[in-house]
Amino acid sequence: MNKKIKVGILGATGSVGQRFIQLLDNHPWFEVAEIAASDKSTGKYYGEVVNWIQKTAIPDSIKNMKLKSCDAKLESKIFFSALDSNVAGEIETELADDGRLIISNSKNHRFDHDVPLIIPEINPEHLEIIKYQNCSGGIVTNPNCSTIGLCLALKPLHDEFGIEKLNVVTMQALSGAGYPGVSSLDIVDNIIPFISGEEEKIQTEPLKIFGTLNDDKIVNADFSISASCNRVAVIDGHTEIVQVSLKEKVTVKDILRAWKEFSDLPQKLKLPSAPKNPLHYFDEEKYPQPKLHRNIDKGMATSIGRLRECKLFDFKFTTLSHNTIRGAAGGTILIAELMKAQNYLEKYL
Amino acid sequence: MNKKIKVGILGATGSVGQRFIQLLDNHPWFEVAEIAASDKSTGKYYGEVVNWIQKTAIPDSIKNMKLKSCDAKLESKIFFSALDSNVAGEIETELADDGRLIISNSKNHRFDHDVPLIIPEINPEHLEIIKYQNCSGGIVTNPNCSTIGLCLALKPLHDEFGIEKLNVVTMQALSGAGYPGVSSLDIVDNIIPFISGEEEKIQTEPLKIFGTLNDDKIVNADFSISASCNRVAVIDGHTEIVQVSLKEKVTVKDILRAWKEFSDLPQKLKLPSAPKNPLHYFDEEKYPQPKLHRNIDKGMATSIGRLRECKLFDFKFTTLSHNTIRGAAGGTILIAELMKAQNYLEKYL
Amino acid sequence: MNKKIKVGILGATGSVGQRFIQLLDNHPWFEVAEIAASDKSTGKYYGEVVNWIQKTAIPDSIKNMKLKSCDAKLESKIFFSALDSNVAGEIETELADDGRLIISNSKNHRFDHDVPLIIPEINPEHLEIIKYQNCSGGIVTNPNCSTIGLCLALKPLHDEFGIEKLNVVTMQALSGAGYPGVSSLDIVDNIIPFISGEEEKIQTEPLKIFGTLNDDKIVNADFSISASCNRVAVIDGHTEIVQVSLKEKVTVKDILRAWKEFSDLPQKLKLPSAPKNPLHYFDEEKYPQPKLHRNIDKGMATSIGRLRECKLFDFKFTTLSHNTIRGAAGGTILIAELMKAQNYLEKYL
Amino acid sequence: MNKKIKVGILGATGSVGQRFIQLLDNHPWFEVAEIAASDKSTGKYYGEVVNWIQKTAIPDSIKNMKLKSCDAKLESKIFFSALDSNVAGEIETELADDGRLIISNSKNHRFDHDVPLIIPEINPEHLEIIKYQNCSGGIVTNPNCSTIGLCLALKPLHDEFGIEKLNVVTMQALSGAGYPGVSSLDIVDNIIPFISGEEEKIQTEPLKIFGTLNDDKIVNADFSISASCNRVAVIDGHTEIVQVSLKEKVTVKDILRAWKEFSDLPQKLKLPSAPKNPLHYFDEEKYPQPKLHRNIDKGMATSIGRLRECKLFDFKFTTLSHNTIRGAAGGTILIAELMKAQNYLEKYL
Repeated sequence: MNKKIKVGILGATGSVGQRFIQLLDNHPWFEVAEIAASDKSTGKYYGEVVNWIQKTAIPDSIKNMKLKSCDAKLESKIFFSALDSNVAGEIETELADDGRLIISNSKNHRFDHDVPLIIPEINPEHLEIIKYQNCSGGIVTNPNCSTIGLCLALKPLHDEFGIEKLNVVTMQALSGAGYPGVSSLDIVDNIIPFISGEEEKIQTEPLKIFGTLNDDKIVNADFSISASCNRVAVIDGHTEIVQVSLKEKVTVKDILRAWKEFSDLPQKLKLPSAPKNPLHYFDEEKYPQPKLHRNIDKGMATSIGRLRECKLFDFKFTTLSHNTIRGAAGGTILIAELMKAQNYLEKYL
Repeated sequence: MNKKIKVGILGATGSVGQRFIQLLDNHPWFEVAEIAASDKSTGKYYGEVVNWIQKTAIPDSIKNMKLKSCDAKLESKIFFSALDSNVAGEIETELADDGRLIISNSKNHRFDHDVPLIIPEINPEHLEIIKYQNCSGGIVTNPNCSTIGLCLALKPLHDEFGIEKLNVVTMQALSGAGYPGVSSLDIVDNIIPFISGEEEKIQTEPLKIFGTLNDDKIVNADFSISASCNRVAVIDGHTEIVQVSLKEKVTVKDILRAWKEFSDLPQKLKLPSAPKNPLHYFDEEKYPQPKLHRNIDKGMATSIGRLRECKLFDFKFTTLSHNTIRGAAGGTILIAELMKAQNYLEKYL
Repeated sequence: MNKKIKVGILGATGSVGQRFIQLLDNHPWFEVAEIAASDKSTGKYYGEVVNWIQKTAIPDSIKNMKLKSCDAKLESKIFFSALDSNVAGEIETELADDGRLIISNSKNHRFDHDVPLIIPEINPEHLEIIKYQNCSGGIVTNPNCSTIGLCLALKPLHDEFGIEKLNVVTMQALSGAGYPGVSSLDIVDNIIPFISGEEEKIQTEPLKIFGTLNDDKIVNADFSISASCNRVAVIDGHTEIVQVSLKEKVTVKDILRAWKEFSDLPQKLKLPSAPKNPLHYFDEEKYPQPKLHRNIDKGMATSIGRLRECKLFDFKFTTLSHNTIRGAAGGTILIAELMKAQNYLEKYL
Repeated sequence: MNKKIKVGILGATGSVGQRFIQLLDNHPWFEVAEIAASDKSTGKYYGEVVNWIQKTAIPDSIKNMKLKSCDAKLESKIFFSALDSNVAGEIETELADDGRLIISNSKNHRFDHDVPLIIPEINPEHLEIIKYQNCSGGIVTNPNCSTIGLCLALKPLHDEFGIEKLNVVTMQALSGAGYPGVSSLDIVDNIIPFISGEEEKIQTEPLKIFGTLNDDKIVNADFSISASCNRVAVIDGHTEIVQVSLKEKVTVKDILRAWKEFSDLPQKLKLPSAPKNPLHYFDEEKYPQPKLHRNIDKGMATSIGRLRECKLFDFKFTTLSHNTIRGAAGGTILIAELMKAQNYLEKYL
């Protein structure tokens, strides 16, 4: 473990790319050795080009690193991708064909049949299907920001009691739209009851994530999901109103116990970015709240509150998780840590 | 119609009381002749005591009017009540026993079996049960702010297709909590996923409102309702994510048509505060939005958008209505106008 | 006055262009007959192209009007210009050379020696220098949004007591940056202590506006001005902290009297867009506030409060005015009304 | 240094009291051994009574500690006071008369002639006047939240070049008003151009802080100050627009150099809460910003930007500092650390 694994960042200047750089600064296992963005920045220093919006300063080593183009001339073997979906599909494929491993936060390949869509606490075994990918490299994907926190809260319910129906209404943070993203004129004293493409993601991604690995394919889970997505004036942290019906008849107590006991592979392996407790339940009726709880456990946990019986489903509750940490760069880094710990990275080094 | 009907305002200094005064200024039928508030203000001028938070100035006639105590020494025959629920129950009963008519925005008597809970476009016929009230005066109530806008959107669906199940998640405005209400420290860059007592109101009030008058009682409607209520950083305007299952099998087109054609007694009677169109549907996916649409039709209409099929219910859509106009003072005034037009006020004059 | 004067709007799709269209809807004297924007919209219907962000709906007559290019093929004789400063200079010159009158909200020609920079209550006589413009048409300009409200408050002080030194710190609204303008990520729970080019405008424009017409030129006023400009999370309404030293020794009472008595040509001429009272002084220490007072007198007045003595200047006080009404489209329309009332428009009809 | 010094917190449940508890958790020198608040909480557990609004959880040791009354029966020798100014004056005097040392964030004793008003980087020598206090204990005070950050930026200018005139306009954070403090209805889409008593504090406190110790008295500095204070929709972090005239003629470069080199006793003594660099200057025109920079150096530094020449003063610039850390509890703790390091605490132990 003496020498850090060098990684490249694709889409390094955008808001998720910045989070990768921020979270990988002083990472115990990985080291950013190469950064790439759109062609118009090629050859320029990161510090000159980036519109840095993080609260910590740009790491010095990156500030003076030159940006490269996103193509096969890049030298890294392993990449984190924060590419815009307009270009991610093609670039990631090109690099994977050229023998590189791409761990991607972009949506483009999430539903390729041989690409795993991973939440390390939920479906680490899905990583096995990389072996069936038809390329010399590989692509692994991280789910959408509003899916991850939700699925973490659902995982012990799914495992122990079975999920039958899932209804979700989200109140999503501004940072989920990237930068500059939502105009201030559209959100001060306002909400926007629509986020393009978001409902579709929540209605499909959990089914793959909770799917079963069957040799070379993932057989989707089969519960029904309805999602309604809204944008609210919150900087970071997606809040979701969740209603579920379960296959087994259980009590509030059973669920609280399941959440309390929940801990999985990333915790067992003590992965550097893993939250100590993936789930934090609050007894206070007015919690969780984005401003107070989004940064719990380094922004890598899901906060839950207000569990109660529902007149239309079995139960309803509220979840909160940090959309640009657990929901994007942090979640993707946790996948890489899991792959390292399980020796998936060796073949790329 | 030459002489205006004199009315008194109970709880005149609070935020709903202020709205009554604002909306009754230059009202064609009513005139504020008496104002009452808590004992500590008794004998003081309104303009000295009130912490006025409306965007229009205090009407001069009210500014220099003296506040009275809320008791039977008040002279008016008809009152609008914006009393705090801590005291409303008793005071309203006392005045009704003393022969006065109270049209109340307070929650205390909403579920008394002989007190109608009125939305003029929905259940004007329920006014008839006043006759069975065991007092020389009368009490009529206005529903909760988050119930009214919602029920307006549901009315044509209930009438034409029958409602079977109703799921609501709200994003409610700050003004719903009164003044000072929500601390700024709790809501800037935040949401609060809980509003005390609110979910219970939405889960019960529509059933009485959509109930059937049967001689001297109202037989509740019997569909199931689940509500989850949240506070967001919006000044005015409650947004609600609505999911419904209907008794009849219908299409999106059928619903749009039903909403478009909807118009009821207040429109027919051309009541002064009635919206020209109670329902405004927007085709734009990103609408309705509180900042843009809360004031449509004088703040008395419900805006609707995003009607689409739902994987768990038949349909889902988004509603918006002004919580302190249609949802409080404006809605209560519309009830009074309806009563005037239908000769319910005569016996009190 | 039977027939309305037809006008064209240059830059009709932007946020100031939209305000022109909104404020000219049902205007008693003017009628929008032609709209122009950037070439990529040419030939398209306004309603298809515009991202309308006003709270009232697009006037039907404009919604179905086709956009034209901003060039000499336009047919109108009189234009309101809301062009972006990147293109305004050249286009306005071209049209003026071609015999049209441009009343412009753009900054480009404000300091041309023969172009008047007009606030109708302050320097209507400056319109005379149009006669010396070296073109067959003419250009008249409206000052910057943060200058207008400020100068209105200063006008009676300048006339009666003489201004010696002026210090201004602004807290400016988001709408001043256009749409999409300021990213929500930059302003929720934040302020931005810089607005590009803004301080220079406040430090120079008042000197021309308060200048003296001397035959064919305007001799600038000569007091010193320092401005510091900040962006805050307010939708509309620029608040300014003002400190002045005066040439004469006066009291708080003298100033309050001067403000109270102030009324000028637009009020005397009863111009349709003129505020009844250009200045509204509030005795309450916590006023004026943007949310409460920006729309006073149709958004055309300046609100003032907190007048008190200052340890470094003679006096300090706070002003507020609506930046996209009085400070932009509304102010420009008032100039046109003044020109109509004083027969400056005849030669263009 | 093996054993921590036990301290008591007066006013432990309010927002500043909470910050004391948060910042003293795991403090290397001090340990909270006793907590006191208003009589109505006496005997109750802290965790039951407090409305905790910090982002980190209540330290377990404090959660289960019982609250005491604020009187001479308290056992601690040294207290941090976060008492409300309605009661702070009397209680602090009583305890000081009883031999205790009070290091107070309350305003009541700041201008007592024998009470030092300390910013450790500026006037540590003023601590000497405690000796002349007419009581067996002692009182030391921390300045107002808007004064501290400002004075830190001024300190090297005052020392090297001399301050002649100082003009300040503030945009202050919501947390400065305590909890619940400012109503959300007053600040969403708004600013409030007034904060009661605040301007007086900024106009007087710096003169005592920059005063000269002359045996048993502090001779005030004598420059003129004008302050105008405003409340904006920012959670934490006061931004101030500063204009100064200096006694010596200097350049922008001289000032930047003075700020860069600035470091004082707390840095030399490596006090645990001292910022590494008390001043951070930003070259970017749009900085400093509260959201991005308030937490720099643990919230204990002042950020500065936009230094430029001024037409009315010599220079103008913008400062930012965290009002509840450096400006309140953190600043007060730094005073205690300074007193410990300089052996002022011994006599109380």
